[in-house]
Amino acid sequence: METKKRTEIASLGQFGLIDLLTRDFAPQNPQTLCATGDDAAVIAVPEGEELLCTTDSFYEGVDFDLTYFPLKHLGYKIVTAGISDLLAMNATPSQITVSLGVSAKIPVEALQDLYEGIAFACKEQRLDLVGGDTRASMTGLVISVTALGHAPKERIVYRRGAQLHDLICITGNLGAAYMGLQLLEREKRVLADVADPEPQFKGYEYLLERYLKPRPRTDIVAALAEEKIVPTAMIDLSDGLASDLMQLCRSSHCGARIYLDRIPIARQTSALAEELHADPVVAALNGGEDYELLFTVPLSMQEQVMRLGLVDVIGHITAESTGCYLVTPDGSDIKLRAQGFPEQE
Amino acid sequence: METKKRTEIASLGQFGLIDLLTRDFAPQNPQTLCATGDDAAVIAVPEGEELLCTTDSFYEGVDFDLTYFPLKHLGYKIVTAGISDLLAMNATPSQITVSLGVSAKIPVEALQDLYEGIAFACKEQRLDLVGGDTRASMTGLVISVTALGHAPKERIVYRRGAQLHDLICITGNLGAAYMGLQLLEREKRVLADVADPEPQFKGYEYLLERYLKPRPRTDIVAALAEEKIVPTAMIDLSDGLASDLMQLCRSSHCGARIYLDRIPIARQTSALAEELHADPVVAALNGGEDYELLFTVPLSMQEQVMRLGLVDVIGHITAESTGCYLVTPDGSDIKLRAQGFPEQE
Repeated sequence: METKKRTEIASLGQFGLIDLLTRDFAPQNPQTLCATGDDAAVIAVPEGEELLCTTDSFYEGVDFDLTYFPLKHLGYKIVTAGISDLLAMNATPSQITVSLGVSAKIPVEALQDLYEGIAFACKEQRLDLVGGDTRASMTGLVISVTALGHAPKERIVYRRGAQLHDLICITGNLGAAYMGLQLLEREKRVLADVADPEPQFKGYEYLLERYLKPRPRTDIVAALAEEKIVPTAMIDLSDGLASDLMQLCRSSHCGARIYLDRIPIARQTSALAEELHADPVVAALNGGEDYELLFTVPLSMQEQVMRLGLVDVIGHITAESTGCYLVTPDGSDIKLRAQGFPEQE
Repeated sequence: METKKRTEIASLGQFGLIDLLTRDFAPQNPQTLCATGDDAAVIAVPEGEELLCTTDSFYEGVDFDLTYFPLKHLGYKIVTAGISDLLAMNATPSQITVSLGVSAKIPVEALQDLYEGIAFACKEQRLDLVGGDTRASMTGLVISVTALGHAPKERIVYRRGAQLHDLICITGNLGAAYMGLQLLEREKRVLADVADPEPQFKGYEYLLERYLKPRPRTDIVAALAEEKIVPTAMIDLSDGLASDLMQLCRSSHCGARIYLDRIPIARQTSALAEELHADPVVAALNGGEDYELLFTVPLSMQEQVMRLGLVDVIGHITAESTGCYLVTPDGSDIKLRAQGFPEQE
């Protein structure tokens, strides 16, 4: 490992540290009236629009493993995770706050890497950092992100609006982030026993990127607006297709049928699954952290949705009493479960 | 210790737990269009007003010690701490989100106590709980609070507006929360060696309440509005009078002179300080967690401010070049420092 400069957090003090970390974050949005440096941020919500707000926390050892998760990527990923919930409501993210709990063992340079990733994501997504604090924690790194956004009332999409016969659409492909994590975990186990380690990631770079640096689907919200499509319901795919679809169905009081052979799975996802003797469908259903969007539209909008060129229709909404099912190519119905492989009935 | 029912978090699952904890939180504000149960909260900001947002985190072992901090009080206190930053901007708090990181050792009943305290504070302050999550943490309890509020643009008060000769006003009295903490820490040390412990808090109940269950100064914001007073600058007293005054001065590019004999200190604060051979002025200057407000008004408003009956004028704003000083009754000037006792020059 290369030798790096190591500055102790205590040498800067709390205010010095915050100043250092946030000095590259000049506000980009005119709606951000006061970003950092006061008791609270002040934000103008565009006239005729509502404010949206969501909070997520990330714990070292639970949500990420710093032995292989580069802090710059982690900074990017927590922004994606934070604003993904706003995109799932069809809103425009505009500000975030980031609170850190850090143990004394983390040097200032590591936090600078983290903030570099946050800054990169903010710039890319036109977000302003409008607050947060850095505090001592007794153990590992804890990151809490609050994301703020806005949308006209009539464009806000809830989980609860799916209707009978609506089409179930998803963006991108599923299971890649989970397989990326499996790859990193495998290398961690292997390299623990090797003197001069060189990880074997060749051919699986896409999986690593999907796990370490997932991109928020801001493009989908923009494309839906462009095509004047307002989904009837939407949720982001953070817990896995099965769990998230079931949540949407629970909120909308409906059931669903999705078709196994329509679930988009990337070539690298299937290839690594095969190598690890795993099932790529399980990764797609239960892996989570894809940060893709799942939404429903009326059957009449099928053509319009396909024109987006960004989504796959994987099934349709059924009556609540029928439950949520995965249909296999041979026509079997498998009941979806939030965790583990679906149960054949 | 009494025997309590103990339900494991794992027995409820993540969604079951959140449902259980938040079921008593029906929104009270018509501005809260969507509180919990979706990807994000949706909030209508009153027409002609701006949104204010602030985030705070609290770590077990750093910010609170569960061996003597009742969870119900902790729930109340984190709401006070969260909205105190909004009050310091002269805004009306309206919503909060609460994210928890909990270790498996914490039973569901303990989290219910915590949420009971949060619910009590929300009801008292007319706040809606609009989100948050509960996640596993590797160690102790981590609580992250985001508070949202609103205010007409012309009534928002920043740290940066203090002017030469302005009066420095503070609400309530200082140092009581810190002495409450000292009392609890002393009892913890004493009781560790005793078989049948009975803590000695008699005569110091007020100090315990100030530390364990501080009330947010919502009444001050209301009183200022009633009297049509808009302070030139304001900050909440969470880090201690010295540190917070110096921050306000740094933002306003000014200095300050405050008078030792005008700093309001409660009788119990002085009494316990004497018993512990401590200086109550140090508690007031550096103790922190008082959650009182410090604000400045033009000299011409002295009578109007005194009419509030809620504040003490403890000094005045000076030129930036003169720095921040505490003036003792014998006329000595002592330079304020953020930590530790001020330095005589």
